[in-house]
Amino acid sequence: MRLRNKPWAKDRIAENPQYVVANPESHKGNWSKVFGNDNPIHIEVGTGKGQFLVGMAKQNPNVNYIGIELFESIIVVALDRLIEEKLPNLKLLNVDAATLNDIFGKNDVERVYLNFSDPWPKNRHAKRRLTYKTFLKRYEDLLVDGGEIHFKTDNQGLFEYSLTSFSEYGLLLKYVSLDLHKSDFEGNVMTEYEEKFSNAGQRIYRCEVKYLND
Amino acid sequence: MRLRNKPWAKDRIAENPQYVVANPESHKGNWSKVFGNDNPIHIEVGTGKGQFLVGMAKQNPNVNYIGIELFESIIVVALDRLIEEKLPNLKLLNVDAATLNDIFGKNDVERVYLNFSDPWPKNRHAKRRLTYKTFLKRYEDLLVDGGEIHFKTDNQGLFEYSLTSFSEYGLLLKYVSLDLHKSDFEGNVMTEYEEKFSNAGQRIYRCEVKYLND
Repeated sequence: MRLRNKPWAKDRIAENPQYVVANPESHKGNWSKVFGNDNPIHIEVGTGKGQFLVGMAKQNPNVNYIGIELFESIIVVALDRLIEEKLPNLKLLNVDAATLNDIFGKNDVERVYLNFSDPWPKNRHAKRRLTYKTFLKRYEDLLVDGGEIHFKTDNQGLFEYSLTSFSEYGLLLKYVSLDLHKSDFEGNVMTEYEEKFSNAGQRIYRCEVKYLND
Repeated sequence: MRLRNKPWAKDRIAENPQYVVANPESHKGNWSKVFGNDNPIHIEVGTGKGQFLVGMAKQNPNVNYIGIELFESIIVVALDRLIEEKLPNLKLLNVDAATLNDIFGKNDVERVYLNFSDPWPKNRHAKRRLTYKTFLKRYEDLLVDGGEIHFKTDNQGLFEYSLTSFSEYGLLLKYVSLDLHKSDFEGNVMTEYEEKFSNAGQRIYRCEVKYLND
């Protein structure tokens, strides 16, 4: 994603703590209170400009969504969408995914979404991929037993890598589509990227994997 | 595959027992004797006209190959190839894959190849797919511990199904390619189908899965 410098982004984020949660570590183990209900919590790691989560939050009012995005200049776009839509079941966090376990405790989350994550195509950068085993461990430590990861990408190499990484970690592959937009999958909400790539004739890959209880 | 009636096929098979093994059940647990050496044994279930296994047997003289094909009118084509090539490390069996465990005992086989198996696209026919769980159990009961299945197909639906079936069975996904002919996989031997479909621009999917020891 192209990063445009937005010096005002930090202030805008700080001015909207009802949408971009400040001090998220303070809510570890208590996220239901932030939303004021006990609905399941689904997070998206790398939420970008927020089109996916805004669409999901509108489609599923009985699920609470949290979007995690490191870059201030990008998350402000998601914030503007959220201010416009005023969705009570969507919050944003301006943090690094590496700090997820400081923010969420075991059982805080029911599902993790990964959409069009950075492929880091060089082998020596494999550890940075959001489907690398250290990230799978981070997700495990914040998910309920039987929690799931729902993953989509247009990047063939990242999808191949991720399928083997999931398998090596012991995750159950519940569902896989090798051409999402020609499949019978219903209720798909597209990300910005997905719209662009799919319109260009690119295949979208998607899978759902589940953590098995010991 | 189009089945042409070949009334002479049965005789031709019976006349060449050094290539199409007669009474294969009698060799259960003793297949090394059939080959006269202790090299590993790899089988192909649904070997068709034999192009793949003939190519593999030439490429890998220190592996013993056994091709299994139910249809007489098809296996005779593989037989003719084998008669011409006179390969000492390739045998054929004219049997139904459902009888595999009458023919091979535990540890007889190191690897199973499945190439362009019938996709049986209707859900009610899922049990007939060679990657259905009952077949995965059959392979397990004839493979060594840590034995592998190497699978390729051009059929997207069968590949998607098979990935989930392998995972549900507890197999480890070691390798996956979603576009084999554009990948860096080396030593690929093409089947007749693969040549035809690949020339027509169709993607070939390939994976390797491994049985984990308990």
